[in-house]
Amino acid sequence: MGRIPVVYYSKSGNTRRMAELVAEGANQPPHEIRLRELADATAEDVLWADGMAIGSPTWMGGVAWPMKRWWDETIVKAWGKLDGKIGCAFSSEGGMSGGAELTCLNLVTLMLNYGMLTFGVTDYVGKRTTLHYGPTCVREPSGDEDCAACRLLGQRLAQWVSVLVDGDHSRHPRQGERP
Amino acid sequence: MGRIPVVYYSKSGNTRRMAELVAEGANQPPHEIRLRELADATAEDVLWADGMAIGSPTWMGGVAWPMKRWWDETIVKAWGKLDGKIGCAFSSEGGMSGGAELTCLNLVTLMLNYGMLTFGVTDYVGKRTTLHYGPTCVREPSGDEDCAACRLLGQRLAQWVSVLVDGDHSRHPRQGERP
Amino acid sequence: MGRIPVVYYSKSGNTRRMAELVAEGANQPPHEIRLRELADATAEDVLWADGMAIGSPTWMGGVAWPMKRWWDETIVKAWGKLDGKIGCAFSSEGGMSGGAELTCLNLVTLMLNYGMLTFGVTDYVGKRTTLHYGPTCVREPSGDEDCAACRLLGQRLAQWVSVLVDGDHSRHPRQGERP
Amino acid sequence: MGRIPVVYYSKSGNTRRMAELVAEGANQPPHEIRLRELADATAEDVLWADGMAIGSPTWMGGVAWPMKRWWDETIVKAWGKLDGKIGCAFSSEGGMSGGAELTCLNLVTLMLNYGMLTFGVTDYVGKRTTLHYGPTCVREPSGDEDCAACRLLGQRLAQWVSVLVDGDHSRHPRQGERP
Repeated sequence: MGRIPVVYYSKSGNTRRMAELVAEGANQPPHEIRLRELADATAEDVLWADGMAIGSPTWMGGVAWPMKRWWDETIVKAWGKLDGKIGCAFSSEGGMSGGAELTCLNLVTLMLNYGMLTFGVTDYVGKRTTLHYGPTCVREPSGDEDCAACRLLGQRLAQWVSVLVDGDHSRHPRQGERP
Repeated sequence: MGRIPVVYYSKSGNTRRMAELVAEGANQPPHEIRLRELADATAEDVLWADGMAIGSPTWMGGVAWPMKRWWDETIVKAWGKLDGKIGCAFSSEGGMSGGAELTCLNLVTLMLNYGMLTFGVTDYVGKRTTLHYGPTCVREPSGDEDCAACRLLGQRLAQWVSVLVDGDHSRHPRQGERP
Repeated sequence: MGRIPVVYYSKSGNTRRMAELVAEGANQPPHEIRLRELADATAEDVLWADGMAIGSPTWMGGVAWPMKRWWDETIVKAWGKLDGKIGCAFSSEGGMSGGAELTCLNLVTLMLNYGMLTFGVTDYVGKRTTLHYGPTCVREPSGDEDCAACRLLGQRLAQWVSVLVDGDHSRHPRQGERP
Repeated sequence: MGRIPVVYYSKSGNTRRMAELVAEGANQPPHEIRLRELADATAEDVLWADGMAIGSPTWMGGVAWPMKRWWDETIVKAWGKLDGKIGCAFSSEGGMSGGAELTCLNLVTLMLNYGMLTFGVTDYVGKRTTLHYGPTCVREPSGDEDCAACRLLGQRLAQWVSVLVDGDHSRHPRQGERP
């Protein structure tokens, strides 16, 4: 079983709802999941992790400042000790074209700075929705495709933890399709 | 009257449809508009311009390679001569979270490299749609909000050309609201 | 005369030194300059501005969190009222390849979100130094090229304020070279 | 032994020199290395890979257009089949602040689009040089720190291939330091 914290900051509840769906996806089959509000997430949580999903609302085209402070200060003692852990991102925005992809890239950049490995997802979860750089939602996840995108992020994270950290190659998402 | 080329690359026709709407918005009141497919757009077009809107489909999370080649090669003789011209971007993507915001940022970066000024748009065109870094559409622009976002990009470009290049302050979009 | 605040956050003094050089460059010929530490910079400063330069150290590959909080909270009442103002960015990083260009792009994105116009600089200030997306320094600006890059950012900002806001076309940096 | 292609595009030879150093680093201890000019690199190379390093010169603030075409067209039949492979980036630029970090982020974005895992490097290779998002050089790699940064990228890639793909945890770069 992999250790997977899902850490989110949320003011309106939209990013929290995304985080719950990500955590749900990461737990099939069961892993050790810690669903953590930013205020409760500590350096110990990320040191404990094999992989983690981090979510922030999009504020002014990037991560909300409390999320940036968390990386800059709260978990800074873990810097240099997260190398090789696996991470991914998600974000809620106020409107279409509102910057949620840019926020996901902000989070990816933070993870790279910490020496982590981050991944993209090639899959489509419906005719009009993918999650290449992490799922993005306009406000709350609404409709089947939004919810499926959040769940798939968690599921893929759990798969990479199983395959790459635990060496369980049977959980590779492209099993049977690989050259 | 300002000189405004709208340059686009389009394979499926989706980005072309966005370009037509952008050009429509840029022409109210009339400016000199050149709607140009990438294959027909030359260095002369961008040297002629006061401001320009550039659109590309999102391919693999960024501008389509023919668009990159256009900046790298086709118009390279204009490099160093576009300083101070005004630019903005738009993109169509295959699915929600597909990278169209990243493509807009690619185009913004190219414009900055050429010494241009690029702008964002604060306005919402409906309850769920903005165009902060340029309008993005899933496939073709569909519905009123998508179309309004494209038109507003053109309109705002035309306004900045009038205000900043022609010195016609009566066209400032925040006229009457300014401190 | 244009109104130009130069706002910076600095803990070590490196970004402050950059800000002083930017302010020096912006003041030739004299403009109204306000050199402001982040803690002293208010919404009134940015509402007053015609153009502004903003600097942050690179922390974890992006703007320092107090800088993000400033955009998210301190000046949020100016959101929607800065449309059309001109902005540019600068950053100090801990080491080469440390993320200072990414921080400049973060600041550019924040300015776009606020509806501002941002510009890049095509010029080289020496054989090995440019400032296309804003000057970046490893720690303090050291050597002639670093200092020239910071000064040129200020100078170019002042030029665009003169040309685009005040309509004084004699200050266009490509005067005489334009088609 | 891991399978590691190092793919580069180079016109001046600067990015080629970086690629040679990356390949050198990736081969200690020996892995199967394929050092490939872009023109010779095929979909078969990336399908064969466990991990790969990709380098491009910085052109106009992003990857050179032939590199973008390679991802868009040459290897597109591998799309959906590279999920879970490990990747990293490097770039040469014309001058300091010239956009090489942005090019590395372009390459990271392309890898994410293809479902790959990308990593950052926390280490400093000297007092003034790191390679958090991939090593960047002004023109050719010159001096010990530039060369060490390129070699370390290759070495870290090889380590992650050993640890994460081959399950050889003795090669973890933070061995002995982990919590």
